[in-house]
Amino acid sequence: MKTDTKDDMTNIREMVLSFIRPTQAEKTNLETVRKGIIDDIVKIARREGQLDIIPISVGSAERNTWLRGNHDIDVFISYPEDTSFNEFYQKSKALLTEMAKTGDSWEDRHSEHPYIHIRKEGFEVDLVPCFRVKSGAEIKSAVDRTPFHCVYIKENIRGLEEDVMLLKQFMKGTGVYGSEVRTGGFSGYLTELLTIHCGGFEQVLKQASEWKHGTLIDIAAHQTIEHDDPLVVVDPTDPKRNVAAALSLTKFSLFIDRARFFLKSPSVEYFSKKEYPPLTAEEYKRLAEKRGTKWIAVSFKTPPIAEDTLYPQLFRLEKSLKEILTRNEFTAVNTFSWSEEHKQSIVFLEVLNDLLPPLQKRVGPPVWNESNAASFCQKYKDSPDTFSFAIENERYVAEVLRKHRSAAPLIEDMLFKEAALGRHVRDSLKDGYEILQNEDIEKIESEAFWKFMNEKLAARIEP
Amino acid sequence: MKTDTKDDMTNIREMVLSFIRPTQAEKTNLETVRKGIIDDIVKIARREGQLDIIPISVGSAERNTWLRGNHDIDVFISYPEDTSFNEFYQKSKALLTEMAKTGDSWEDRHSEHPYIHIRKEGFEVDLVPCFRVKSGAEIKSAVDRTPFHCVYIKENIRGLEEDVMLLKQFMKGTGVYGSEVRTGGFSGYLTELLTIHCGGFEQVLKQASEWKHGTLIDIAAHQTIEHDDPLVVVDPTDPKRNVAAALSLTKFSLFIDRARFFLKSPSVEYFSKKEYPPLTAEEYKRLAEKRGTKWIAVSFKTPPIAEDTLYPQLFRLEKSLKEILTRNEFTAVNTFSWSEEHKQSIVFLEVLNDLLPPLQKRVGPPVWNESNAASFCQKYKDSPDTFSFAIENERYVAEVLRKHRSAAPLIEDMLFKEAALGRHVRDSLKDGYEILQNEDIEKIESEAFWKFMNEKLAARIEP
Repeated sequence: MKTDTKDDMTNIREMVLSFIRPTQAEKTNLETVRKGIIDDIVKIARREGQLDIIPISVGSAERNTWLRGNHDIDVFISYPEDTSFNEFYQKSKALLTEMAKTGDSWEDRHSEHPYIHIRKEGFEVDLVPCFRVKSGAEIKSAVDRTPFHCVYIKENIRGLEEDVMLLKQFMKGTGVYGSEVRTGGFSGYLTELLTIHCGGFEQVLKQASEWKHGTLIDIAAHQTIEHDDPLVVVDPTDPKRNVAAALSLTKFSLFIDRARFFLKSPSVEYFSKKEYPPLTAEEYKRLAEKRGTKWIAVSFKTPPIAEDTLYPQLFRLEKSLKEILTRNEFTAVNTFSWSEEHKQSIVFLEVLNDLLPPLQKRVGPPVWNESNAASFCQKYKDSPDTFSFAIENERYVAEVLRKHRSAAPLIEDMLFKEAALGRHVRDSLKDGYEILQNEDIEKIESEAFWKFMNEKLAARIEP
Repeated sequence: MKTDTKDDMTNIREMVLSFIRPTQAEKTNLETVRKGIIDDIVKIARREGQLDIIPISVGSAERNTWLRGNHDIDVFISYPEDTSFNEFYQKSKALLTEMAKTGDSWEDRHSEHPYIHIRKEGFEVDLVPCFRVKSGAEIKSAVDRTPFHCVYIKENIRGLEEDVMLLKQFMKGTGVYGSEVRTGGFSGYLTELLTIHCGGFEQVLKQASEWKHGTLIDIAAHQTIEHDDPLVVVDPTDPKRNVAAALSLTKFSLFIDRARFFLKSPSVEYFSKKEYPPLTAEEYKRLAEKRGTKWIAVSFKTPPIAEDTLYPQLFRLEKSLKEILTRNEFTAVNTFSWSEEHKQSIVFLEVLNDLLPPLQKRVGPPVWNESNAASFCQKYKDSPDTFSFAIENERYVAEVLRKHRSAAPLIEDMLFKEAALGRHVRDSLKDGYEILQNEDIEKIESEAFWKFMNEKLAARIEP
């Protein structure tokens, strides 16, 4: 049996690698484009009189851990540490403005930090100015760590590059790769650190299958701060930072599950993401009927901001609407957020019970919370709409006449009163929104949405 | 203002005491009966050759803290500490058998410990054999503490007897007096200790209005064990015992509330319990319609056991049925147990939503709980009735086809499978039970029940 599994694993590795190893042509191409960009930076910097900048190639391309078909190039442009922020902004702006012209197209991705994205000869290129600080622990701006990450990985990854590739592909196939807020999965740097720490692809899976909430990996044994995250991987270049801080509990848990099942019965299936075709109107109708639940959705124009700024606001709204429903005794079995750039953003809530009786039970504060107790008593004790007023366990409870017996009017009423609204979401909602129910949802016209819905409604962890 | 309140309080004390102070005739009568009983015990013991027993008068009658109309006499019969259990049982049985004949009627209240109850000349008399141990901390049987309680109170209560009476009456009026399981309120000994500790009736209320969960009162400053109870009053005669262990969180909290409101605006109202007339069929129908909820009740023959043995079993059943409903996404807003001796016992559940959609969401174990996770996966992952199988946060979740869309068939199905059944309740259920719903509940014929229902449905803490 053991030999079989080992053979299986070797076969699987080889088969997957034959699909994901970059081709020689791809490598040469990437090298040429990258060299061209660095030459451009140096040339333009000289022209601008910026003689003390150093271009630093970072990212998976530099570390030989990138996957076939990946066309990302990341180049950092470092300024001396003692450059003032003002000078830094002005100089980097001048440099980036000129660099933008070298691309086939470009975008300003500046948020707190100046940075541009250009497309050039089929490559997606990030150009990021930073400070040349002494260590990852003494950064002046958040991006200053990246060059240290790159050095650390390059020094430690030798011989494990293909294990990183396998791990990345395994994570893509199982839906846990990508550290953007929308995904909440594993970043590239995190997969590299895990591979180094554990000693290889299978070794990562073996350890992961034993992980629990709060698992700590401190490669450099220099942690200085406690983190309350599902997984804590202390950055070997900065003792204060958890590299897995963006990893959601769901993706962490899914990875544990997938690692465990894969090890029990290894298969190439784990390395390719299941594609869900868009749900058709008829399929949706049939599914909705079979489920028998009520869908409520708040739809509004997508604010013109980066996804990583938008999604935290969508998730906050989603969570607070769910809490509002729960407080009012509606059972939201599923909630999710979905957004399409330039089009609409929607927060969905699937409710089990959409018609509640007139009676509503309000659970108040504990009796020993005197000021809250007093205001709860004042509000409900003598109201004509109060059926009963009593104490249960340590809390006041009032049975009152329910204001909204259905979920949609409740949400409409509470949206600006009790929901948690981030700045951009609030602005967009103020410009207008719709509250959709089952039949209205059918009418949403977006292939991406119906793929997403299919994936959500038919979700099966497989194999 | 202060003077007014003080005058108010003095007036209230006097008025209430004028109603609850035992009359001279009552006192004389009680003394005569008690003396007669003790004489009988001594006489019979001599006849039986039991020369080493000592009758000990205990209870509120002995402490002068009883209320008018109270006709309880408690007499303990102590045997030397070195008496063997076997000898103790045999001797006390012989003695109690003869004593039983002196009453107008009698009952064997023996459970773990031999003890009889007799009625004599209008008095309710408990006769309890015990061991004459050295201290309350070194008892041989649970009842051996009582004589020490009595001694302690007699030594410390002088001058505060009327404060105890007022406190007892206040607790009766507000529904928190009585330490039987059904009530879960304050015992007589507890009211006496609180009065001694605080220094008087009003002082108890003042302190109580500041109580929080976990409040500790250790009069003898000798606590040796931590208790996880709402209120901990360490027995001055036994450092390991919490005198308030039987006090429920609800009654504890209600007393805090009532103390606070009374002190804000003292009134005699607090000293008399509101009477609820039985709800008529029409009133119940109208109320049920107004609430719009669904009532489900499990009704069965009351087991022929003491209430203090029955009620823990009823409460366990009530709690577990509520949990079954919650697990299956029914919202039970109210639950309660009711029982009538020789007739029926009923556990009631008031459900907000009695028709659920076909979809049911099952929340499974965390991924890192490997053995439970494996059995959850096996049960749901590939079932044809599973809509979806996924991970949310740290847990497996399955959307499955709901087996019971209504609460009554669910409870019927789960009663012997998942509900927590105490021995006597299980036996009675096996002999037969009914699951009642709204209309069936109307047909319950019991004045006591309809009084109870009225109190539950119209509950208002007043004033």
